[in-house]
Order: sequence, then structure tokens, then C-alpha cells
Amino acid sequence: MKKYVYSFNEGAKEMKELLGGKGANLAEMTKIGLPVPFGFTITTEACNRYYAENRTVAEDILESIYAKIEELENVTGKKFGSDENPLLVSVRSGAVISMPGMMDTILNLGLNDSSVLGLAALTENKRFAMDSYRRFIQMFGDVVLEIPKAEFDKVFDGRKKEKGVKYDVELTAEDLEAVISGYKEIIRKFTGKEFPQNPREQLIDAVKAVFRSWNNDRAVLYRKLNGIPGDLGTAVNVQSMVFGNMGDTSGTGVAFTRNPATGENKIFGEFLVNAQGEDVVAGVRTPLSIEKMQEAFPECYKEFVRIAELLEKHYKDVQDMEFTVERNKLYMLQTRNGKRTAQAAVKIAVDMASEGLIDKKTAITRLEPDQIDQLLHPAFDADQLAASAPVTTGLAASPGAACGRVCFTAQAAAEAAASGQKALLVREETSPEDLAGMVAAEGILTARGGMTSHAAVVARGMGKCCVAGCSEIRVSEEEKKIYMPDETVVGEGEYLSIDGSTGNVYKGKIKTVEPEVSGDFATLMGWADEIRELKIRANADNPRDAAQALSFGAEGIGLCRTEHMFFDEERIPAIRRMILADSHEERAAALSALKPFQQGDFKAIYKVMGDRPVTIRLLDPPLHEFLPQESEEIENLAQIMSVSCEKLTAKVQELHEMNPMLGHRGCRLAVTHPEIAVMQTEAIIDAAIEVSQEDSLEIVPEIMIPLVGSEAELAFVKKIVVETADKCIKSAGVKMEYMVGTMIETPRAAIDADRIAAEAEFFSFGTNDLTQMTFGFSRDDTGKLIEEYIKLGILKEDPFKTLDVEGVGKLVEMAVYLGRQTRPNLKLGICGEHGGDPKTIAFCHDVGLNYVSCSPFRVPAARLAAAQAAVKGPLGALRNGAKGGNA
Amino acid sequence: MKKYVYSFNEGAKEMKELLGGKGANLAEMTKIGLPVPFGFTITTEACNRYYAENRTVAEDILESIYAKIEELENVTGKKFGSDENPLLVSVRSGAVISMPGMMDTILNLGLNDSSVLGLAALTENKRFAMDSYRRFIQMFGDVVLEIPKAEFDKVFDGRKKEKGVKYDVELTAEDLEAVISGYKEIIRKFTGKEFPQNPREQLIDAVKAVFRSWNNDRAVLYRKLNGIPGDLGTAVNVQSMVFGNMGDTSGTGVAFTRNPATGENKIFGEFLVNAQGEDVVAGVRTPLSIEKMQEAFPECYKEFVRIAELLEKHYKDVQDMEFTVERNKLYMLQTRNGKRTAQAAVKIAVDMASEGLIDKKTAITRLEPDQIDQLLHPAFDADQLAASAPVTTGLAASPGAACGRVCFTAQAAAEAAASGQKALLVREETSPEDLAGMVAAEGILTARGGMTSHAAVVARGMGKCCVAGCSEIRVSEEEKKIYMPDETVVGEGEYLSIDGSTGNVYKGKIKTVEPEVSGDFATLMGWADEIRELKIRANADNPRDAAQALSFGAEGIGLCRTEHMFFDEERIPAIRRMILADSHEERAAALSALKPFQQGDFKAIYKVMGDRPVTIRLLDPPLHEFLPQESEEIENLAQIMSVSCEKLTAKVQELHEMNPMLGHRGCRLAVTHPEIAVMQTEAIIDAAIEVSQEDSLEIVPEIMIPLVGSEAELAFVKKIVVETADKCIKSAGVKMEYMVGTMIETPRAAIDADRIAAEAEFFSFGTNDLTQMTFGFSRDDTGKLIEEYIKLGILKEDPFKTLDVEGVGKLVEMAVYLGRQTRPNLKLGICGEHGGDPKTIAFCHDVGLNYVSCSPFRVPAARLAAAQAAVKGPLGALRNGAKGGNA
Repeated sequence: MKKYVYSFNEGAKEMKELLGGKGANLAEMTKIGLPVPFGFTITTEACNRYYAENRTVAEDILESIYAKIEELENVTGKKFGSDENPLLVSVRSGAVISMPGMMDTILNLGLNDSSVLGLAALTENKRFAMDSYRRFIQMFGDVVLEIPKAEFDKVFDGRKKEKGVKYDVELTAEDLEAVISGYKEIIRKFTGKEFPQNPREQLIDAVKAVFRSWNNDRAVLYRKLNGIPGDLGTAVNVQSMVFGNMGDTSGTGVAFTRNPATGENKIFGEFLVNAQGEDVVAGVRTPLSIEKMQEAFPECYKEFVRIAELLEKHYKDVQDMEFTVERNKLYMLQTRNGKRTAQAAVKIAVDMASEGLIDKKTAITRLEPDQIDQLLHPAFDADQLAASAPVTTGLAASPGAACGRVCFTAQAAAEAAASGQKALLVREETSPEDLAGMVAAEGILTARGGMTSHAAVVARGMGKCCVAGCSEIRVSEEEKKIYMPDETVVGEGEYLSIDGSTGNVYKGKIKTVEPEVSGDFATLMGWADEIRELKIRANADNPRDAAQALSFGAEGIGLCRTEHMFFDEERIPAIRRMILADSHEERAAALSALKPFQQGDFKAIYKVMGDRPVTIRLLDPPLHEFLPQESEEIENLAQIMSVSCEKLTAKVQELHEMNPMLGHRGCRLAVTHPEIAVMQTEAIIDAAIEVSQEDSLEIVPEIMIPLVGSEAELAFVKKIVVETADKCIKSAGVKMEYMVGTMIETPRAAIDADRIAAEAEFFSFGTNDLTQMTFGFSRDDTGKLIEEYIKLGILKEDPFKTLDVEGVGKLVEMAVYLGRQTRPNLKLGICGEHGGDPKTIAFCHDVGLNYVSCSPFRVPAARLAAAQAAVKGPLGALRNGAKGGNA
Repeated sequence: MKKYVYSFNEGAKEMKELLGGKGANLAEMTKIGLPVPFGFTITTEACNRYYAENRTVAEDILESIYAKIEELENVTGKKFGSDENPLLVSVRSGAVISMPGMMDTILNLGLNDSSVLGLAALTENKRFAMDSYRRFIQMFGDVVLEIPKAEFDKVFDGRKKEKGVKYDVELTAEDLEAVISGYKEIIRKFTGKEFPQNPREQLIDAVKAVFRSWNNDRAVLYRKLNGIPGDLGTAVNVQSMVFGNMGDTSGTGVAFTRNPATGENKIFGEFLVNAQGEDVVAGVRTPLSIEKMQEAFPECYKEFVRIAELLEKHYKDVQDMEFTVERNKLYMLQTRNGKRTAQAAVKIAVDMASEGLIDKKTAITRLEPDQIDQLLHPAFDADQLAASAPVTTGLAASPGAACGRVCFTAQAAAEAAASGQKALLVREETSPEDLAGMVAAEGILTARGGMTSHAAVVARGMGKCCVAGCSEIRVSEEEKKIYMPDETVVGEGEYLSIDGSTGNVYKGKIKTVEPEVSGDFATLMGWADEIRELKIRANADNPRDAAQALSFGAEGIGLCRTEHMFFDEERIPAIRRMILADSHEERAAALSALKPFQQGDFKAIYKVMGDRPVTIRLLDPPLHEFLPQESEEIENLAQIMSVSCEKLTAKVQELHEMNPMLGHRGCRLAVTHPEIAVMQTEAIIDAAIEVSQEDSLEIVPEIMIPLVGSEAELAFVKKIVVETADKCIKSAGVKMEYMVGTMIETPRAAIDADRIAAEAEFFSFGTNDLTQMTFGFSRDDTGKLIEEYIKLGILKEDPFKTLDVEGVGKLVEMAVYLGRQTRPNLKLGICGEHGGDPKTIAFCHDVGLNYVSCSPFRVPAARLAAAQAAVKGPLGALRNGAKGGNA
């Protein structure tokens, strides 16, 4: 017969799936001889049977539980319900994957009208016994019988009022007996039954309550949000109680084997004399540093230090432990791997590897890639932050903290910065014209737009703090006012502070601090570089970002957008003349004015990057982005350009699009305006030739054609590029290799990748657009909708943040497979925003891409994530559990 | 050794690929003993070798040609270059797939300074001989030597001037000799060489010129436009000349075995006495009806009638023949299957089947589905049309002809129609608010938007004539003026005529006529219905369209959109109240005001459709479509609705989307506004229950959830639908089956179809949106771009007209395969605009869909196309030559 209940001495840490995390660790500690109050674990399979059998606990499981109670009585020498030496137990849930605070716990189970007397006698403390009993009834009433907590509070507070006392501890044993009567009355009233006096009955009811709690609303939501399957079930741990509140020879505490904030290799923790675990957490009394335990309980302290060291060696990771001292005897109640800050994670990983406790491959898995942001961006002063409450919260679009004076225009921000003031750019949403202001500002706050809105993308690219899509605020750029949800109004020049790592927005100033990056970080990243297989490139459009990316360890540029280069005020007139040109000649003249700028841009980037690969994308956005949209601006511009307002207006109207995302952009521009591709190709090649000569390098430019949908389209544009490039090379009289490739960013390109690969020397997956088109989600419009979908569990994650492996990912896989069928040495990369997302990087590793490219500030995280993917190896389920659809 | 040259008596009609269409038919006629001037055909393979061998004719081919010339000399008893009985030949191209007028022809080859005398002697007509010679030199100079035609005209016109004559025929033999000298001078000047006197040399040069013409610009473009592969090559036919212009015992003509305009079973054609073929075509002299030939050449006529009958029986189709009578002897120069009007095609197919010449399966392939439009829509009076020149041309968006007074607003059109006037609605582009005006107007003309723009889709749905995207005109709705490309201006109330079958726009009035549909059409469609396997449904949103569809043979409704139902002025206030509602209650109240309308709509449709399947799609468009966008309109509406202008403005802004096509629409509305889905489901089910009871039917409503992207999303909305439907059914106390399915219109849905099929009982492919998202083409914005792409050969066809089988089609195939893996009895259909396109219908048949759904007026074409697909069987290449990507 299947075993549904395990004593602590029957389990081990490897049995997590069956016993849950807590149960497995209690068993493990028992196994290696540590002082753990004895008990047993009811398995997750029992939980699943409970649900499968219509929410009943089967007879055979009941019998196993009763048998284990007898065993527990024998081991402890105590008896359930005894009025001399009563057995009291805690009943705690313990899921496979930790779901903190999501499920319920019951303490002191086993108390009834008779055993409470036993407890009083045993502890020689009637008040303690009565208090334990009334707490148990209250928890049982709440958790098992589902009676509103407020009902119990009413009785308790009533008694305090009656006695004219303020604190709980001022109530006497007799008062508590009266409270107990009141509690029982409540239970009678709500359930029509007496409070159960039979401890076995109490226990089974409690076990069922824990099973039930697996599917309470909080837990279901938590699982949805964290992608935890709903059929894992929870285990139930039944453990004999020990009491840290039995006077001054007792106490309780929590501790880490190393400092979780700094990583220092020294036990770190807190304890309280004469207290129960919840008192430490609740913060009612100020706990003492763990070292003070040495004075209070010198023997127990020595023992605890020994155990802590043993546990860390045993688990090969920092342990987060709970313990209780009952009358000078130490009991271990829990151990688990400890959570830690990014700084601590780095130090601990490197230290442990140096100590020989773990190897390098393990070390690099001990830091979450997303934690690296904490190491690279400014943060708020922790004390000031603790004292501040956010006025609203938007999307944590680009990490870091920023504080500055509110500016509503790019110009205002630039002026403020120029005059030495810290500026915070606040916009309804940003557009490419705001670029200068974004550069100048400390941070950016927008009311609209999602995680991949212009503001968010550009800010992340710059490593600048950004809170986007803060939909509770209303930004009136005309009035120069922000209407806050608390009905206050913030005007221009006032201070705001924003936290791009949490999305929080604060009124007023909060000091920012630059966190230190210790040498350990460099060590750890070096190990990651040894281990990873994916190359890491950065998305960078200018020498500043390129240098930043290099300093973070980028090995090339995966995406150099060229459109940002045109918004500069020296340049935009030329591109506007190009757009308005009536003849081929006029257009060519306007473009030749742009060429020196472009060539200079590319030279500067090559100078930084040397002979590392640089992928330059031809002009991508629709031309209307370069023209103003409002009639007043159009009038101004017409005057400046000396064209008629009618002509300019007509052009703006002609270029207007209902759905610009699906409009005349990408390589479609090159088809209808081949002169642009010619000019850009000339600039790319000529720049590469000059820098190659000046710096004695062999630069191999990579020219990328965006938004391709078919082989014919790519072939058409490639022909223009190749003819131009070959002409440049010939006329310079040099030899130069170059590559022409394409972005795969329309679903059609992915489907048709075998044909497209006949023309393309590399593919770069533009997963932003690919996600937009595959889902039919405009990233400008569906930010709120996606949030709603995540809340409702329709989406597990924001597909613009983490690649949708089951949908968009299938297209990527298809394109990889088809592309390499045609061209086995096809170079494959990803340059969408997803390139910096660890889960996506794991996917990219698994499908066999050559590189990922991300914003410079994500490069370290990407290096780490790539190494972790290499250590973890291909996700078998993803690769082999494939559906019929594709190979 | 491979054979590159075939005498006419060595070929047959089955050898089209090798001999080209013309050559194969000349061979066939020779084979069955008809009087064909003897000759030979140089194969398409020789043409391909010409290109493969760097544009040279290989020695072995040259030798074969010379050998065939000798044979020709022997058979005819004439000799190349002879001054007694010279052999003259025509050299004509003849491709596998006919490319009329695309390639070149040379007549009278073999003439030189000596043989021209032979010809003169033989015909006893020096002038005729000299005229033939000067024509030959001119053609040779133009086609072979590529000398501008104008050069020759100068000499010829100079001579006429010199002689003071007006007509060519007034020039004497001596004049022509002088012209010949002038022509030779030109050739000397341009080529530096004499005009070649050696007929063999002339011939080889001519053959090369024909080979070259395969790749002239016109031919290349024609092939691109018609999807003809470039590597087929052309054959060359060398045929001994016969002359219809040898006096009154000679003549020439063209004829059809049946009347190509009416289909009447009677020889139809024209002939000219004493003329060459080009004279008939050129229209210089008015030809005589073929019956008159009986008087001119009674014997030849009898012979010709016999041959015509024989050829029709032999080819089992109407023949289009060319013949020449040389001195009372009949020669056949060409036969091919004759082009015919839709009316004629129908009558001929039915007649031939009745005569036993062909079977029903063949009969239904004899009408192009696209021709059916001609049978169902009004057309312009042919005489008036011939006398009119279009002022501009837009997209032929919805067939038919219309003439009416220009109205710039829907209201004006409605008022004009109400007062008994014919209105033509002219708009920049239409929106759903124009619906009433579109219904009232005779036709619709828009300046913007493509083949699937709102105007085009709705017009086709109504079977109303529409010219869309007429980009040369500028419509100023404010000024109430249309600025035409010829710089005239058309104002309100003036007449315009538009032809939705050609896209032509005419100023003023042109009479329209209702074509008759003969009983033969019904017969042919009946045969199609017997043969086809696909079911044909219609897209219809109201009882009028449903009835129309039924009358055209639809078997159900594949797409009933519900949004059009809300734009009625009685209803739109309620939907606006729903959008502006602050509370759930307010929203529910607004919706319950709409429910009776919806239920009435559905009842009316069920009443028409009986128990045929009706698929009703839940609300699809983004909510902002129901609100005004201009501030003036917003102010008005705010007043009418008694809400503040600020609130309304704020809502309009909140709902504004950058890319509405990828925005908050489709099932996403049902997720965030489940009340809408509830109301619509109630209306659908309650209407079905009522009509089932009233008319004793078993209606099985099909509820379709649009724009689904994942199983979770579908499951979420389906739950709402099912709970609501079950409640309605239960509360009515009846039994009713219903189906819930989904549209597959995002790429993600296609990729994830196996999972989605777990929730969906049917799939309907929304290929409009699927095409938009797969290509990244907004149909509102890329009309002009797609035209450009087709011109450049990047696209073969408009993917919004004919499904892109290689891209979008792969997603459809994938979804079919994956969906049926999960649910073998999954019902599959298509409801995009493509559902009425014959090539797409063939694809749908091949991938195994159950039905196609199209606009009512396309139903007959769809029935026919489905039958043709069934006759032709699955396209092997498409099915089996599959790429790796999918199964």
C-alpha cells in the first residue's frame, strides 16, 4: 500500500516533491542527528487524493495519521489530551515550491479543557497555559472553522475594556478563562457545535484546512503569478510543540549562516528571550543580535553555531534557520536556503567557491541575473526610502532611482540640466523628439505606454531610470501640471523621486546612492564568461552606449539603429527635405547632405568597437515620424523650410497611417526610396574602410535589412545594398568583407525562413515586433490589457518582457530550423528587448542561437543568464515534448 | 542527339511545352490532315540553350534548322532566295502560355534583291512584291536590328510628301523601290553593314531576335504580372508564307466556332477579300461577316465550315481560328481555344455538355469564377461606355457599374435617395457611421483604402459597386469638392459614373443595364453543386443579405458580424452609455437596452436561414469606433448624453490607440467587459429558442469568439458564453444544442491550434487579420505599397485578395493539422474576404476545410470555384512538395 505519512526519520531532503520543502528539510535535519522536535509529514499525494476524492481524507490515510500520532506519543512520552503531560503539536503547510504566507498554520493543537490543565501543571504557569489555549481556539476558529477573526477580537478587546487594561499581557489567567468561554460561545454560534475537545478530531480538521488552503484565492493567484502548477498539492507537517516562552531559560530566534545583506561569512540573526517565533517576526519586542545569545545561553549558542556550520556544509548554501530554546535545550524548527541581496549573493558565491564548498558552475547559479540591476544602478537611500510612501506606482520600466525637478518638455529638461539642476522628464508619453531631454534628465516618468514603449526602451538603452505607464496620474503638458491620484497637483520645477526598479513614484526629494560593485562581481562574471556558449552583444546607437556596453563585457553590437541619428536638429532638416522632395535629384541631394553625418556616426562607433562585429540596421521607422503632426508645428516648419503650408500638410496627411506598426516602414522604405538604402550603405562601408585603414583593423560590417516578409523583398533590397557596397569598396581600391542579413520580425519571415536564408547571411530575431504581430498586441496600446490578462491568469508573463515560448518561440524555432536547413552556417541572434531577459536567454541557448543582444546595462545580466543556461542544459521538456506543428 | 527542330508533321497538340501553344496546334492541324502551310518549329529547349550558351545558337541547332529549310523547299517546291519561285516564310514566337502581343513576329522573310523579282514575276504584281519587300525590311530593321521605327517612317512619309499623295496605296512600285533604297541606307547607317541578302542569315537573325524577345521588358513584366515562370522559354515557328492579298481570289479572316459574345452555336467571324491578316486586325478596312464568304469563296467556305466543326470536336472547345485564302485555296494558320464572355461561356458549356461533347465536370471548368460577377451586377451600356474615357482609375473594389449625383456625406446620400435621386457616395474613406449612406447610394467612391478597406468590404458584402483607393483624386469633404487629376473639380450634386469591375471613374452620366441571367447559368451552377465538396456559406449581418445569399445558393452564414448592428441611431446611444458607464450596474443597464435590438436582429436572420448553420461573431471592433473623434462632435454628443465634455473627451483619449488593429478588440473586449458577451449570448440563444419554437426548427447557433490568441483566453470567454447560454436554455425549459468556436486570425492562434482546439468546436479562419499580422501589412495603409510591390514583382498577387499560400497559407495548414489532431471532427471554415477568391477556394479545398464563407454576391463564384477545385483535385506540389516547417 502506498505510504501517505512519513515520520521525520523516514524522509530526506531529496523528497521535496512528496514531503514539501519544509517537511523534507525537517526530515533531513532529523536524519543527520540534529535536535528537531519529532513529528511527521502528510504527503502532497495525500493532498491530491483529498481533492480527487471529493475533499475527503480516505480511511487508510486517517489510519496512517493515527498510527503516527501513537508513534509521536511514544517518542515524546506525552499524550494527546493528557491532563498531566499533554502532547501539543503544530500543524503547518509545506508546499514543494515555497509560497510564503499563502497557506495556514495552527499552533498548540491538542489543547482542550483537560489538557490545558496538564500544560498549566507542567509549566507551573496557568496564565501561559490559558493564553496558549485561547490562541489555539482563535487560530482554529479562524483557519479551520472559517469564522471571521473580528468576532474573536471583539471578545478579547471587550475583556480588556472591562478590565480597563491596555496590553494583552495585563490580562490574568482568570481573564483568559473568561475569554476562552467567550470564544467557545462564538464557535457554538457560528457552527452550531461545541469546540472539538478530541485532539484527533482537531488534528484531522486542521489537516483538511491546510489541504483546503492550497486552493484558497490567495494561493491560486500566487501560483498563477509565479507559474506554479496547480496540481502539485501541499504537504502537512505535524510537529510536537516546543515553547520558547517558558521563562528566562527559553527563547527563540532566526539566523542566517552568513550575512544576507553583505555576504559576510559570519552568522547573522536575532533572538528573543522568553518568546515564541511569531514575536520575533511581529516586531513587538526588539530582538537581540544573535551574538548576545552567547551571554544568555552560552551552551545553546555553541551548539547552534556548530549546527549552523554543519547545515551550510551539508546544503552547500547559506541557510536561513529557525530555532527555539526550551528550558536551555536547543531545538531546530526549520532550515532553508537563505534569500540574500545581490551584493551578498555575489560575495557568498565567490567566497564559497574559494572555500571549495561549491564549484564555479554552481557559483554562477547563485545570483539571479535580474539581481544584477541592483549592482549597476543608483538606488534610494534605504533610510529615507523607508520613511517615504509612494504616491502612485507605474511600470518598473528601467531600473535605478532618480530624483529631480519636474520638466514637461525635452527642452525644459535640457535647459535645467544645462544650468546644473537635476531634471525629471515627465510626459504623457515620449517620442523620438524627446531624446535630448531624456539624455539630460535623471529619469523619465510617463503616464502612458508599456514595458516596451518608446520611453521604456530608450531609457533601458541608456541605463536611465524610467517609470512608464503610470496610469493613475494625469499629465497635462499644456497646464504643466501632474494630477496625482491623491488629488494633489505637482507643477513644473517641483521635486519628484521615482524608482525604476519598483515603479514607485514619491513626492519630494529622496537621496540616491551609487552602490559599490566589489571585485567579487568581476570574478563571478569572469566565471560566467568561461561557462557560457552564447555570445553577448549590445544594442547601441552611438559611441557612448557602445563604450558603456564594452565596459559591461559586450562582444559586439547586435543592433545599431540608425533612426535616432536623424533626430538631431542639425540633421532632421535634411531628412525632411528628403521626404518632401519632388524629384529623384532633390531627394538624392538631401540624402547626400546626410551622408557625412551618418558616416561620422558609424566611424565613431567602429572606433570604439574595433573589429568586433557591429550590426547596423537600415532605416526602420515610418517617415511620418520625422514630420510634425500638429498644425501649428506644421506651419512653423513650412516657414523654416520655405515650402507652402499646403504642401507640407498634404505630405503629412499622405504619410498618415491608421496602424503605423503595420505600415510603410522597415525594408518597405528601401523598396520605395532606394536612395536611402544607398546612402546608408555608402556611409556604413566608407566608414568601415576609413576606420580599418586608420586603425589597421579588419572590420566586417554587418548590414541588416529590417521587417522583411519574403525572399523576393529581401533580394530586392539586398541587390541595392550589395551593388552600392561593392562600388564603394571598388572605388576605394581596398578589399573588405561585409555581410548582409535580415531581421526576422514578421511571422511570415519566420514561416518562410528557408527561402529567406537563401539571401540572408544572418538572421536577427526582432522579437518585439514578432511578438506584436504574433499576438496582435500593439505594445503602445495593450500595456494595461496585458496587466489585466496576467491578473486573470490568461497570460503567465508579459510577452514583451519574457518571450512567449509556446507561441512566438515556436516561430523562432521554426525559423532557426528552416534557416539552417538552407544555410547551415547561418548566424543567428536576437535583438529584441527580450535579449536581456534571463528566461528568454535560456530559450535562445536551447534553440541554438549564436548570440543575444540587449541594452548595455543588461549585458552583465545576459552574460550570467547565458552561463546559467549552459549549466542547466537544454530544457528537455521544451525540446522533446514538442507538439506536432514543427520539427 | 536531342531534337531541337520539329516539322509540323512531327508534332502534336500534347507537345505544347516543347513546341509552344501555336506550334503544337499547327502540328496538330497538320496531323489531322488540315491544309496548313508547311513549316517547322524550333523548340523552347533551343531557346533555353540559347540563353544557357551565352546567347548563341549552337552549331547542331543551326544544322537542324538548315536541314528543315531544305525539307521545306522540297515540300513546297520553292527555294530560299530564288528569283523564280522564292520560298518566303513567317517567323513567329510561340510560348507555352500565351503572351499576346508580348513578343515579335516577322513576315515575308526570304525576300532579297533577287527573290523580290521572283515574287513579282510569280504574282505578276511588281507593286505587291516591292511592298512586301519594304515591309519585310522595316520589320527586320525594327525587330532584329533594333532600329527605331520612326527612322523608317521618316523615309516612307518623305516619299509620300514628295509625291504629294495621302495614302500608302497611292505609291507606285517605283516609289516603293526608292523607299527600299532609303531603308537600306538607314540599315547601313545604324549597323555599319548592308541589309543581309542571304535568306538563311536573315532567318537565323530572326530566330535569335525571337529568342531575345522572350526577355524583353514587356515580356518579363507580363510574366511577372501573370505568374509565368521565366525559364519556360519560347518556341519559334517558321512557316511558308501564303498571301491573302493576291487579288480577288484571295482573302483572309478570323473566326470562332461559336459566338464568343452570346455563345450561339454558329460560326462567328470576319474576313476580308484581297487582304493580309494584319488588315483584319488593324481595322483600316471594314471586314465582312463570315457568312459573306459563302458568296466570295463558296468552295473555300464549305471547306472552312467543315474544318471548323472538325476542330471543335477535336479540341472539344470553341476554337478561335485564323485562315487565309490564296488564289481560291484555303489555308489554316492558327487555331486555339477561344476567349468568350461570361454569358457565352455559360451557354457554350451547357450546350456542349448537352451535345455530349464534354461531360459535366468539364463543363463547370469552362467558366472562370471571376467571370460570374459579370452575370450578377449591372454594367454600363456598351455603346455609351465605348464613347467615354475614364478621368481616373482606382481599385476595382466591388464589381458593377453605378451612376449618380455626388454626395459627400452619408446623410446627403440618404436624403438624395429618399427624394428619389440616384446618389453616389464619395468619401476620403468610409467608416461604420457611413453605413446608411452606403446603403442608400448607387455606388461608393473613396480616395483612400485598399481592397479590404471598410468601403470595399462593406460594398462587396452588399453587392454594391465600389471604386476604392482612387489615389489620384483629392476629396475635400469640407469644400464639398473632388479635385480630379485632369485639374477639373466636381462638386456636390454633379454626376459621376464608376465601374467597380475595372476601377474606372467617368465624369457625367453613363446608362447602366441589368444583364440577363439565362437558365443555362442555373443549370451550370446545379452541376457545380453536384461536384463540389466544400460547403459554401455567406457573410451576412442582416436578413436582407441573408436572403440575398440564400437566393445565390448559400448553405449557411459563416460570419454574422454584430458590430454593424450597433451603429443604427436608435442603438448607438446605448452602446455609448455602456462605454461611458462608471459602474457595473450602469453598464448592465445600457446593455439591457441593447438586448432587445440584438435579439430582434438575430431572430430576423434565423427566420430567413431556417435551420441552416449561422455563425455569429461576438463584438469585435475597438470601442473607440463607437465614439466621435473630433472635438466638435464630442461637444455635441456630450450635450446629447448629458455628460460633461471633459468626461467624454477623457474617455475618447483613454480609448485612443496608436495601432487599433493590434489593440483592445475582439475577445479582449469580452475579457474586460464580460457583460457584452453575456448580453450577446443571451440575445443569440433567446432568439434561437424563439424562432425554433415559432417555426418548429432545430436551430443550432454557432457562437464565434474573435481574435483569440491562446487557449486560456478562449477558455475564459467561452466560460462566460457557456454559463450564459446554459442559463438561457434552462430558464426557457427547452433543449437546445449550440456550438462555441473561435476565429483563427492571429498567427499565435494558428501556431497554438492544438491547444485551442481543446476549447473550440469550430475554427473559422479570419484571413484578413491573419494576413495583416503575418505580413505586418495594415490593410488601411499599405494599399499603394502592395500595388508597388506587385509592379516590382516582389509580390505576385495582392495577399488581401488571394491568400498567400506560401506564408499565411502555411499557418492555415498548420492550424488545420494541429486542430484536427486534438479534435478530429473540428469544423473548419474561412470567413475572410479570401473566402470568395477562386485560388483561395482551391487552397481551402486542398487543405480540407469544411466550408468557405464569402459575401453574398460571391456565393455563385465560390460554388463554381469549389467545384473546379474538386475536379482538379489537390495540388500535388502544394501538398507534397512541402517544406520542413510543418506537416
